[in-house]
Amino acid sequence: MKKSFVGAARTAKRAYSPAVITEGGRTIWLAGHTGAVDDTGKSLAGDFDAQCWQTFHNIEKTLAEAGANLADLVTMTVFLIDARYTTRMTELRTEIFGKDFPASAAITVAGFARPEMMIEIQCVAVV
Amino acid sequence: MKKSFVGAARTAKRAYSPAVITEGGRTIWLAGHTGAVDDTGKSLAGDFDAQCWQTFHNIEKTLAEAGANLADLVTMTVFLIDARYTTRMTELRTEIFGKDFPASAAITVAGFARPEMMIEIQCVAVV
Amino acid sequence: MKKSFVGAARTAKRAYSPAVITEGGRTIWLAGHTGAVDDTGKSLAGDFDAQCWQTFHNIEKTLAEAGANLADLVTMTVFLIDARYTTRMTELRTEIFGKDFPASAAITVAGFARPEMMIEIQCVAVV
Amino acid sequence: MKKSFVGAARTAKRAYSPAVITEGGRTIWLAGHTGAVDDTGKSLAGDFDAQCWQTFHNIEKTLAEAGANLADLVTMTVFLIDARYTTRMTELRTEIFGKDFPASAAITVAGFARPEMMIEIQCVAVV
Amino acid sequence: MKKSFVGAARTAKRAYSPAVITEGGRTIWLAGHTGAVDDTGKSLAGDFDAQCWQTFHNIEKTLAEAGANLADLVTMTVFLIDARYTTRMTELRTEIFGKDFPASAAITVAGFARPEMMIEIQCVAVV
Amino acid sequence: MKKSFVGAARTAKRAYSPAVITEGGRTIWLAGHTGAVDDTGKSLAGDFDAQCWQTFHNIEKTLAEAGANLADLVTMTVFLIDARYTTRMTELRTEIFGKDFPASAAITVAGFARPEMMIEIQCVAVV
Repeated sequence: MKKSFVGAARTAKRAYSPAVITEGGRTIWLAGHTGAVDDTGKSLAGDFDAQCWQTFHNIEKTLAEAGANLADLVTMTVFLIDARYTTRMTELRTEIFGKDFPASAAITVAGFARPEMMIEIQCVAVV
Repeated sequence: MKKSFVGAARTAKRAYSPAVITEGGRTIWLAGHTGAVDDTGKSLAGDFDAQCWQTFHNIEKTLAEAGANLADLVTMTVFLIDARYTTRMTELRTEIFGKDFPASAAITVAGFARPEMMIEIQCVAVV
Repeated sequence: MKKSFVGAARTAKRAYSPAVITEGGRTIWLAGHTGAVDDTGKSLAGDFDAQCWQTFHNIEKTLAEAGANLADLVTMTVFLIDARYTTRMTELRTEIFGKDFPASAAITVAGFARPEMMIEIQCVAVV
Repeated sequence: MKKSFVGAARTAKRAYSPAVITEGGRTIWLAGHTGAVDDTGKSLAGDFDAQCWQTFHNIEKTLAEAGANLADLVTMTVFLIDARYTTRMTELRTEIFGKDFPASAAITVAGFARPEMMIEIQCVAVV
Repeated sequence: MKKSFVGAARTAKRAYSPAVITEGGRTIWLAGHTGAVDDTGKSLAGDFDAQCWQTFHNIEKTLAEAGANLADLVTMTVFLIDARYTTRMTELRTEIFGKDFPASAAITVAGFARPEMMIEIQCVAVV
Repeated sequence: MKKSFVGAARTAKRAYSPAVITEGGRTIWLAGHTGAVDDTGKSLAGDFDAQCWQTFHNIEKTLAEAGANLADLVTMTVFLIDARYTTRMTELRTEIFGKDFPASAAITVAGFARPEMMIEIQCVAVV
């Protein structure tokens, strides 16, 4: 599978690429992932940083079941409960990805399936 | 076309799969579908169940024009006017799909193109 | 790459196709694009028409870097700050695309990364 | 009790007064009133006109219990589920009040106590 | 100061009165009160029950400075971050007031001054 | 008319008082005021500072018609289109009032009567 990044230098400080090009390979269509509880089942209500990390961790676990990892993501839509979390999300994403960022949109929504959720990410990987 | 479901047992009770993998085939990129009027043009304003059924029915009709059906959906984003409809939507989706659920995110939004709309679903099928 | 439009006559007046089918080719996964400043850096705060045009212009520039253009878009999700902008967006999209419209969903959201943003579009092209 | 209207001609076409002045008398602090079911208990889900009429009718009934009527209202806050209902609400309010309009604010909110509710009005009367 | 409750039996199970009538006395116009931190400054982020109790506790402290208490409240507007907290708020309000409930509206909003806030209450007391 | 401020030192840096007490006098119930156009009719779309100033200016004009001024305000509810404008609003309010601040709540809403509106303030004055 061939993959390339478009205009990535322009938006690297926000931890995403304007576009990612793929050709062939397997496409992994991921459900919206959230992180309102940690791996032990403890609530992360009210802790945006923890929920954001947990969300990416949960995505990583699903990708692992598919024989893939976070570096294989090509695009994502990040749904946030408050617009002021956008910058913090990009900071955490910078730590998590480091480089070769997927495409991304970040949107503030009116709510999620459960009131304690603060972030949901739906994404696509190609391997 | 090859298709496989990832971690599906974990989330079956919410009628979606954490991820669906496809390779090759034709990709059908569907527009956001809604169901604010029934097949005869009668308004379904205020009736969430009816709008949810109609929305999946309208998706089915578009898929049929493309030589596909609901079982070919691999991912969807469900936009809802009120978070409290999320569980009802998953119940209806359980009836409609039965098994082999597509990936899905469910998001509560601030509004739609017309004020009587209560649900919009954008999805992708691969055949 | 083969591409076909499904049921396009039904929804042409809203400048989108119910579905677009692609097979093979390269997939360009675009980030959410916005248009809150023009090409010279001048703010377009409060001017929906200008932001909508600029957003499509910015998408066009990213596509050009990928060797593609607006006609290669197959689906988009349009996020709007107010539902009443939906019709105006479809009018502008009619002017921009003319025919062979991509699939599309149009959703009203609670906010964006910066408060002056009025529209964000995330899309996929296949070439 | 003395009551006077301030600048009422300026905003009469939107069926409110910029300010209402009261001195002395009894103040009736009304709860938020809604109209999601009619007097027989039938659901008015999805029917904005009916809910708006019913809401004012319910306010009228509460005022009657207090020995007052709609003409005694001095201010109200109208909460709406969709901004596009604002104009229709002012049309109905014009029919209901005719003249000597109370002060008013009209706000679009993210939701109400029950998902079928489309309007809630909180108001104050002075008699 | 004379105070009376209108139709209170009808709505007692939701812990509010349809209307409260006052005549004369001193009016205490309270600011919107919140409860995102407890009395020691510890964050209550993500804990709706704690924030709801703290909010009423903070209102009580302000009222005490004015020589009044919660029983003197005549109306309130309760702003909530998620509609599903409405019922829980009425349960807590039942415990706090017991009887002779003030008028009230409960509205779901898009956000507050700080993202960790889940409830804000603006109210009026007459003594 | 007697007026006193409760706990004002605690919240002065956010330009409001926790409570304001009034006794007797005339009560001026103001409608929700906005500031989407300036005194010459020019649109202030997208310019929060200008809309905020204009809104207080419009309130001042209505108060003048009632023989009052901004210093007579005792409480207000500030409705904002984006939570991130809350701090800026308090800065402007500090400049406008200087001291003896009214009570206030600041809420982020989903929308207003017209899409270009960014702020609406509903308030009460006692003289």
